[in-house]
Amino acid sequence: MQKGRLIVISGPSGTGKGTICRELLKSKDLDLSISMTTRAPRSGEIDGVHYYFVSREEFAETVENGGLLEHAEIYGNFYGTPRAAVLERLDKGRDVLLEIEMDGAVQVKKSYPDAVLIFILPPSLEVLKKRLTGRGTETPEQIETRTSRALAEIHRIYDYDYSIINDRLEDAVSDVRTIIRAEHLKVGSGSEQLVRQYEEEK
Amino acid sequence: MQKGRLIVISGPSGTGKGTICRELLKSKDLDLSISMTTRAPRSGEIDGVHYYFVSREEFAETVENGGLLEHAEIYGNFYGTPRAAVLERLDKGRDVLLEIEMDGAVQVKKSYPDAVLIFILPPSLEVLKKRLTGRGTETPEQIETRTSRALAEIHRIYDYDYSIINDRLEDAVSDVRTIIRAEHLKVGSGSEQLVRQYEEEK
Repeated sequence: MQKGRLIVISGPSGTGKGTICRELLKSKDLDLSISMTTRAPRSGEIDGVHYYFVSREEFAETVENGGLLEHAEIYGNFYGTPRAAVLERLDKGRDVLLEIEMDGAVQVKKSYPDAVLIFILPPSLEVLKKRLTGRGTETPEQIETRTSRALAEIHRIYDYDYSIINDRLEDAVSDVRTIIRAEHLKVGSGSEQLVRQYEEEK
Repeated sequence: MQKGRLIVISGPSGTGKGTICRELLKSKDLDLSISMTTRAPRSGEIDGVHYYFVSREEFAETVENGGLLEHAEIYGNFYGTPRAAVLERLDKGRDVLLEIEMDGAVQVKKSYPDAVLIFILPPSLEVLKKRLTGRGTETPEQIETRTSRALAEIHRIYDYDYSIINDRLEDAVSDVRTIIRAEHLKVGSGSEQLVRQYEEEK
């Protein structure tokens, strides 16, 4: 049995990362990584499904013990990716999906270099602006700021292994699947087992 | 426009490399690399289509000028992969397919490190033996020798970027296509151009 791959989806906001991940998870052939957080559960959120809800003390202890692949503070709350839960699934041959902001993605690559980092790009800044406008949650000034920030963030593409332009959703989802399959075909540590199978035949 | 990829198909004999390549070429989205040879054209073979037929002097001169990505002597004739013809197509954004024996594949990787080396494996040595027997061109002793050699050759998998087990032909062909697509999605030298497109929008 081949080891699973840790697939990290990241990129500027408004590029549709979340939608791509929801589509990918429909097929049941990969597992979503569940984050640990110190923020209070919102109505309907279940511990161990949406997040692992922990106290600030538990969180700090997990960080101390190297138990997180990455972590960050966002608006006064802590969020992190539990190492053990991810590695256990990978060892079972399951691919694990992680949607995360860009600093987190780089942290994950450092703590787990086999992670496959995929950068999701908008078809153009114009389209990105339209999508953000369509959400109706931000002022024109905020949208301008976000678009400028997106351009700056696009330069961080070199931290990533692959990039996908999310023009049509189904194409982007298919491209992620393509990358996952190709990663499984790569010659690497898993190839030893393959070679052994032929040897045992003799 | 993105640069093309040089896709090198290799592996032990009897694994169906040739059939995979013929299937791949049906789609017209990649070009076959045409070899240069000093052997005489056989009936029906066309210069520039099946091979570039050259004299031993011309061949030696091309080698001398670094004009071949790899070359080898087989049964007293010389064969090689012309560098200029391949690079020209890659620059035009065409993917180029090269089917070649294993020493040649390694030479190509050395002279063109961006080449994507794909190793084709049999589902098992048993199946390989059956396929070789089915050809009806070799004695049982020759088939034994070939099978033993195949096992030795399988250990050279680590010279390759990817490996594909050719169990069902259409799956193997689809896996090669998957690898080619994933290679185009990789972040690399082509990403500069991508980043520039967003910058120019501003």
